Amino acid sequence: VSKIIEMLEAQWRGNKFVCVGLDPDIQKLPKKFNQLDPEDAIADFCMQIVDATQEFVCAYKPNFAFFEQYGPDGLRALRHVVSHIHATAPDAIVILDAKRGDIGSTSSALACAAFDVWGADAITVNPYLGRDAIQPFLDYKDKGVIVLCRTSNKGATEFQNLRVGDQPLFMRVARAVADEWNGHGNCGLVVGATAPQELNEVRQAVGNMPILVPGVGAQGGDLQHVLRAGLTADGGVLINVSRSVLYASNDQDFAQAARKEVERMNVEIKHFLVEVSR
Amino acid sequence: VSKIIEMLEAQWRGNKFVCVGLDPDIQKLPKKFNQLDPEDAIADFCMQIVDATQEFVCAYKPNFAFFEQYGPDGLRALRHVVSHIHATAPDAIVILDAKRGDIGSTSSALACAAFDVWGADAITVNPYLGRDAIQPFLDYKDKGVIVLCRTSNKGATEFQNLRVGDQPLFMRVARAVADEWNGHGNCGLVVGATAPQELNEVRQAVGNMPILVPGVGAQGGDLQHVLRAGLTADGGVLINVSRSVLYASNDQDFAQAARKEVERMNVEIKHFLVEVSR
Repeated sequence: VSKIIEMLEAQWRGNKFVCVGLDPDIQKLPKKFNQLDPEDAIADFCMQIVDATQEFVCAYKPNFAFFEQYGPDGLRALRHVVSHIHATAPDAIVILDAKRGDIGSTSSALACAAFDVWGADAITVNPYLGRDAIQPFLDYKDKGVIVLCRTSNKGATEFQNLRVGDQPLFMRVARAVADEWNGHGNCGLVVGATAPQELNEVRQAVGNMPILVPGVGAQGGDLQHVLRAGLTADGGVLINVSRSVLYASNDQDFAQAARKEVERMNVEIKHFLVEVSR
Repeated sequence: VSKIIEMLEAQWRGNKFVCVGLDPDIQKLPKKFNQLDPEDAIADFCMQIVDATQEFVCAYKPNFAFFEQYGPDGLRALRHVVSHIHATAPDAIVILDAKRGDIGSTSSALACAAFDVWGADAITVNPYLGRDAIQPFLDYKDKGVIVLCRTSNKGATEFQNLRVGDQPLFMRVARAVADEWNGHGNCGLVVGATAPQELNEVRQAVGNMPILVPGVGAQGGDLQHVLRAGLTADGGVLINVSRSVLYASNDQDFAQAARKEVERMNVEIKHFLVEVSR
């Protein structure tokens, strides 16, 4: 098992299953950020969210696109936020949500960017191009590679649920990752909370592999079901929440409100664990 | 038909079918660039390639990853190069090769970044998440959206050639794009020159839709076959070459060598067109 999975397992032993997605949108920030340049505003906002929530989370998931939309300065903010997480919350894992994947030499550049330039511990990747497109990421054996399997959006079924032989495409992806791509023990999968049946199927097929589950909160996925379907003896799930935490309040108290929302989720998770252990 | 496709058709009428991929790699640049900062080196190098080749090309395809690997400054160079192309080669189309695709609000941020921040005329996108992930790109109706269909890498067959019902997955993608996603007439497809049979099949299914064909040159695809399989009455293909043009020489004469290589391709294409018209 890779160092990155050991880090995750330590977090899970501390009952930390929540991953906070960092999707900064200048339009949605509390008023006081209006006075700053966009890059300072999004960096400050994210760092205050990190400071307020780190007691309760196993990971942060900065979303590349939300920084990229502010250009080179936005990406300078991304690097700043990632450094801040490593410096102030060293146990938290930084997952760069970038959904990468390209042919060989390009994927090498992407992997270098993700891990060496932006400083991420793990990255999300898209499997459509096949294993050789993902290999340069897998070769960073202390880093996590989280492969899109069944995404949380409505249109996910268009291709992901098509039957190939005796199984849907997303299960074919799940099995390829579990059986063939995971030689360094550094793989994970993305399965949306909005697809509860698919989450069951994937968990049954992939043993203890970590599953990143977006879609609880603003997208309507059910936390209880995610826990029932996704948890393993070691932990096994990272439950991502973004908007419902980041924008829990759009006033001065935004950081406290974010903390409260994550704490509320943690209480719900602990209740579930107590119920299950009875 | 979208404005972007009209621009392309004008290029094709001028017998311009070559797209030069801009994949700057500091390690491969001629020695004289060593004296510069990485971002200045890659920007200068790309701009000299553009100046030397624009007479013979229909498009440039900056590869996001190769700029991203140099951090925020590398992306500043990307913006600079794109501006330079618009200013000095206004007929050439700028295709940002970034293979994007994400759930709704994230894809909106990605589309804004590609078209408004980086200044691209078109972008490559990954279909795995389904149509709703691509819709924010499609909504920029004067911009091009070029969907990965059958990629040029060896591992492409792992998922793309799986049979779904009576056709392979890549054909299902091709038909979805042609029949359903192309309401604004601004779509294209990526099909690798390394998959000649697949290129035939896609062309037969999608009418006149533009096809971006990488894989000629360093990857070994055959130019004659691409022309036979891909050309339509209007043109229909963008033949991408990257390394074999960019690094035609690694000495002082790199720009002239790049120009010669593109000119050589153009001569071969013109011979083909003359043969066909007989």
